Amino acid sequence: MTPEEILTHIRNIPNFPKQGILFKDITTAIQKPEVFHAIIDNMYDKVKNLEFDYIAAIESRGYLFGAPLAYKMNKGLVLIRKPGKLPAKVVRQEYSLEYGTDALEMHEDAIARGQKVLLIDDLLATGGTVKAAAGLIDQVGGKVTGGLFLLELKALSSQANLPFSVYSLIKC
Amino acid sequence: MTPEEILTHIRNIPNFPKQGILFKDITTAIQKPEVFHAIIDNMYDKVKNLEFDYIAAIESRGYLFGAPLAYKMNKGLVLIRKPGKLPAKVVRQEYSLEYGTDALEMHEDAIARGQKVLLIDDLLATGGTVKAAAGLIDQVGGKVTGGLFLLELKALSSQANLPFSVYSLIKC
Repeated sequence: MTPEEILTHIRNIPNFPKQGILFKDITTAIQKPEVFHAIIDNMYDKVKNLEFDYIAAIESRGYLFGAPLAYKMNKGLVLIRKPGKLPAKVVRQEYSLEYGTDALEMHEDAIARGQKVLLIDDLLATGGTVKAAAGLIDQVGGKVTGGLFLLELKALSSQANLPFSVYSLIKC
Repeated sequence: MTPEEILTHIRNIPNFPKQGILFKDITTAIQKPEVFHAIIDNMYDKVKNLEFDYIAAIESRGYLFGAPLAYKMNKGLVLIRKPGKLPAKVVRQEYSLEYGTDALEMHEDAIARGQKVLLIDDLLATGGTVKAAAGLIDQVGGKVTGGLFLLELKALSSQANLPFSVYSLIKC
């Protein structure tokens, strides 16, 4: 199954989470066994030659793709979570939203100094979330060698200017 | 790697999320490639002969195990989420917490009538969350054929009285 065929299984929901946003609903894709399988296999193909020690998956839709890839590629799986969810000592990175700020956290002992990390999330839009995630890896002395996304919104991602290689399965 | 060996990689954090609770921190297990791989393979062994069409994974730690298993077993992956996260029409199930109530939601078109479902979460304690998840499957006419958990807290789960088979990797 090609990325173009996978895209036909992703549902567009107008005005979610708010008026004027056309939300890409991946649930209709992953609930079909052959589509979910094809997504993981296609994402794997994008990064199979990339060097990294850990997959860091961004809560919570990033887990849906990061966990199968960590399993398939025999990598460690590190969680990047919303504030207050992780039980041990964390590093924290704030980032700006359209109105106000949000933050991400990661256990400070999750990644050893000098280790290479692939960041995974479902969607790359303006890049705010993944930049904050990369900031967490920087704080503990790790190195982001790439960012892997199921979907990339071209109109927004062109301004993201990420300081690492971006691999996205579907640009739309 | 045996379940007993896997357990040695799970960290105990006292007084999280509140005083008196000894939190089982799975992040130290899944960040080691060989331990994460062994968890998935051991969970797979528990349910490889069970009949089901979908894996329904409970947000968000359930995704860490449900997604790799759905990939490995060629099953559809259905998301059970906290309120307000899913963009299309949902069914909703409330459940009691120690103080107050919480709720879970699932897309009402996620599972067809008569389809068989395996529920997955990281932890079985009193069973409140998984009972609510099973209620969602009931509401759309699906059938829960089992519940699969990485950890089961024996002291609490004995009262859960779930109306389907429970498969847990580690009882502690």
